[in-house]
Amino acid sequence: MSQEESGNNKQAAASRRQFLRAGIAGGAALAGATAARAAGDPLITEIQDWNRYLGDGVDAAPYGVPSEFEAHVVRRDVPWLTADPVSSVNFTPLHELDGIITPNGLCFERHHGGTAIINPADHRLMINGLVDRSLVFTMQDLMRFPRENRVYFLECAANSGMEWRGAQLNGCQFTHGMVHCVVYTGVPLKYLLQEAGVKTTGKWVLAEGADASAMTRSIPIEKALEDCLVAFKMNGEALRPEQGYPVRLVVPGWEGNMWVKWLRRLEVGDEPWAQREETSKYTDLLESGKARRHTWVMDVKSVITSPSPQAPITHGRGQTVITGLAWSGNGTISRVDVSIDGGRNWRMARLDGPSLSKAMHRFYLDIDWDGSEMLLQSRAIDEAGYVQPTKNELRVERGVNSIYHNNGIQTWYVKGDGEVENVEVS
Amino acid sequence: MSQEESGNNKQAAASRRQFLRAGIAGGAALAGATAARAAGDPLITEIQDWNRYLGDGVDAAPYGVPSEFEAHVVRRDVPWLTADPVSSVNFTPLHELDGIITPNGLCFERHHGGTAIINPADHRLMINGLVDRSLVFTMQDLMRFPRENRVYFLECAANSGMEWRGAQLNGCQFTHGMVHCVVYTGVPLKYLLQEAGVKTTGKWVLAEGADASAMTRSIPIEKALEDCLVAFKMNGEALRPEQGYPVRLVVPGWEGNMWVKWLRRLEVGDEPWAQREETSKYTDLLESGKARRHTWVMDVKSVITSPSPQAPITHGRGQTVITGLAWSGNGTISRVDVSIDGGRNWRMARLDGPSLSKAMHRFYLDIDWDGSEMLLQSRAIDEAGYVQPTKNELRVERGVNSIYHNNGIQTWYVKGDGEVENVEVS
Repeated sequence: MSQEESGNNKQAAASRRQFLRAGIAGGAALAGATAARAAGDPLITEIQDWNRYLGDGVDAAPYGVPSEFEAHVVRRDVPWLTADPVSSVNFTPLHELDGIITPNGLCFERHHGGTAIINPADHRLMINGLVDRSLVFTMQDLMRFPRENRVYFLECAANSGMEWRGAQLNGCQFTHGMVHCVVYTGVPLKYLLQEAGVKTTGKWVLAEGADASAMTRSIPIEKALEDCLVAFKMNGEALRPEQGYPVRLVVPGWEGNMWVKWLRRLEVGDEPWAQREETSKYTDLLESGKARRHTWVMDVKSVITSPSPQAPITHGRGQTVITGLAWSGNGTISRVDVSIDGGRNWRMARLDGPSLSKAMHRFYLDIDWDGSEMLLQSRAIDEAGYVQPTKNELRVERGVNSIYHNNGIQTWYVKGDGEVENVEVS
Repeated sequence: MSQEESGNNKQAAASRRQFLRAGIAGGAALAGATAARAAGDPLITEIQDWNRYLGDGVDAAPYGVPSEFEAHVVRRDVPWLTADPVSSVNFTPLHELDGIITPNGLCFERHHGGTAIINPADHRLMINGLVDRSLVFTMQDLMRFPRENRVYFLECAANSGMEWRGAQLNGCQFTHGMVHCVVYTGVPLKYLLQEAGVKTTGKWVLAEGADASAMTRSIPIEKALEDCLVAFKMNGEALRPEQGYPVRLVVPGWEGNMWVKWLRRLEVGDEPWAQREETSKYTDLLESGKARRHTWVMDVKSVITSPSPQAPITHGRGQTVITGLAWSGNGTISRVDVSIDGGRNWRMARLDGPSLSKAMHRFYLDIDWDGSEMLLQSRAIDEAGYVQPTKNELRVERGVNSIYHNNGIQTWYVKGDGEVENVEVS
């Protein structure tokens, strides 16, 4: 039945069955309530307006929108985080989502010169530099090359960046919401580079955006030829304007800033360019005053999305679903452990849904909550064997000067009334 | 690099490499044009407005929407198909999409009493009939059971129904657009039935909707316990109102009408109920006057989505991407063949993207089009070994009285100027 049945999932499935047996005993309150309602809840025993009257026809919305009762499920910004005149970052509402795919309308935004609005008929992509022939592609040209479809997470290097110095933002939307995961459709970059003919001296590619910030990043030729895509679709439809419409670079597993949006130029060179966004920004300033650079891979990471500060437990004790996301720039997630006591004891979570390289993974731990306080943590392990570190382990290594590449373990403090706060445990 | 590298895909990858080598020679016109543009296309050599001026900030759309240049990518209805007062069916714009996931806003709609608008706080799901205890669940109750995430196609039994008597609707949106594919998150139905305790006499489940049509369908208990989900999320976010918000039944691989939306009741019984939608509707009237019933599985099917009548070839001869979708209610797609000469000769297409059971599969054939007329066909084969039949093979078996379960091979006639028409070949 399961689409991805690894040994790990089989073990987790066994613990789920164990829970279900326990749950029906332990969840007596839930069973009692559902049985009582069957005896006389007017919302099921009496005819409601939506049973009685014809609803709207299909002409209501040629392009559909969410229910009016989901109006709170939106991207949100943190006003003090970025400067005027326009806010340049908002966050995915991870606490309201499930599964592994992020709907296009909820994918976080991060840009450095606002959203460029480009008519695809007027867009051009140039390849120049150390190539046999410079080329300029129209969007129609790009659509003539063989395409691939891949599910990838995209995480901003500054995701969780405000947490380096301690628990600060009260909600996983804000601590971890600069990540999303969609299906990309695009042309492998290697086909375009082959068309231009990379000279043997060509070792780096500069990717440049067509927006007002002309975002530019250096990418090693090996990565460009390995798995980068020049993508024009996300989740089946055209890229959204804020995600680089009509075309963006996809750099699987690497920091989001390199996934240049509104991609207009690829220059092949013999060394990295040392642009602003790869020197003074997107490098990791250590305690010693030295900076790590070329820290492109987004290392193994996870977060519990519910319960969390914006998604408290409102149903009281008994059967409770703990769920979250895990991802790694190194490949698939092989295992996620969850602790309810601040990292003293760990239980293996159930991974559910397709397990794809450099994509989000969804995990669950189904518990019978006794109503006592919890310190919730999740710890992911990827196929390369990397284990997600604690924040303190990261600080010993890197200090607290950087706002980038924080993949430390997050702690949520669940109180007896189900409310949740962002905390740290020593 | 590839997420799904089957033997089949390896063969297809080999033919793709072969194409690429040939393509660079054969696609000389494309190469020439891209090189010429590099010498002096003002759209790349001169600064454009979107390079010069700051774009919109993130506050523009808390829930994002498509580009203004994609306004034509919408669900469309066929006015003469359904009666007043409200149209009850529209179609997914398959010709504009790629990959395997359908964005929620573009999933086709089909309802029998309009879209019910239900506040989830007021929704109830009852289980009654041959059970140990009748239960009524709130949405909050449902969210406490273990969840699963699965990618499934949903196809209306009447998809391609207008084509039984011959080529009629001029576009794959209309001939094949009553299908979509999303990630569902939900509770396995078996957990809820276990909670109620199905009596040994319980052999069927009646699923009933809360909309004005009170849609009701009988489902065998084996299927209910095998892989049905009570789903509350699609592509990560809450179901859309027109897809059954707040909760629908998911019946993997089976006809869409059984995926009861706005699910309010599950009654366990000892025989099927013979409701309207499983007797006078959704059965297949044969030439003999007898009708096939319980024809639930949606058999192996495919269609070329581009080029197609709404997506003609506009770039002239040379490198051309032929792409389409294949799916089967029996499991995964093992192979798709494409013909450019009306079924005389076949070439194996390249399957690309995750290959998941009872989900859409994306296929491509990259050709060097010489500008001559083509009769394009695709033929899918599923893991059970079923081969998609021709329309005439279907008619011999079933006549032309039914509007349901037409999985015949579709033919597109591509003219020398790239325009495309819906035709049949004998």
